[in-house]
Amino acid sequence: MIYDAFRRGCPSQTVLNLLASKWTHLTICALRDKTCRFAELQRHIEGITPRMLTQTLRLLERDGLVHREVFPVVPPRVDYSLTPLGREVVGLLRDILTWSEAHVPEIVAARQAYDDRPAF
Amino acid sequence: MIYDAFRRGCPSQTVLNLLASKWTHLTICALRDKTCRFAELQRHIEGITPRMLTQTLRLLERDGLVHREVFPVVPPRVDYSLTPLGREVVGLLRDILTWSEAHVPEIVAARQAYDDRPAF
Repeated sequence: MIYDAFRRGCPSQTVLNLLASKWTHLTICALRDKTCRFAELQRHIEGITPRMLTQTLRLLERDGLVHREVFPVVPPRVDYSLTPLGREVVGLLRDILTWSEAHVPEIVAARQAYDDRPAF
Repeated sequence: MIYDAFRRGCPSQTVLNLLASKWTHLTICALRDKTCRFAELQRHIEGITPRMLTQTLRLLERDGLVHREVFPVVPPRVDYSLTPLGREVVGLLRDILTWSEAHVPEIVAARQAYDDRPAF
């Protein structure tokens, strides 16, 4: 079957919905280099609320991009890591992140020029 | 200055917000190969409302990724195309789109397996 993300109802849109979202994007990238616990992820991804991080991790686990491992110790320990599928896509998402960081000056300048245009 | 999209308030987050959004993602990709008029974009990106497409194009124009050209003819004609900055990033976004389309079966299977797990 051929999937086309431009077609209404194509299941590839649900994959794109997941990847084209700021918090899932940052969460996958945060797990690029290592397994993390919840609190580590929360510290690393500044501004994410615990509720949003919980939701994001659940979506990523459901879609097979993140692996959640619970250790039966006291206090309970939960590790999050990328699955092989998650490791496949992290490089592509990291490229977008790097591009965003590298092009801030041009984009801020474009925004300023747009906002300074005389109104018609 | 060093930008870091994981830091709260870093301006690179505003760039990532723009790129990590389904409609801006699809709109940039739709303009990859050619200049389009509004109605062509609306037909190509199924499910986008005229209001959402207008907002998306305005954000992309403001951030310097899309060029809007108005021709003083009757009826008025408006063309949209990628700027050099937009052309730089479209390949990265297209890679995510292609990945989303290619991995639908694995992701749908992962979702099914997750939903079928016994509840604890």
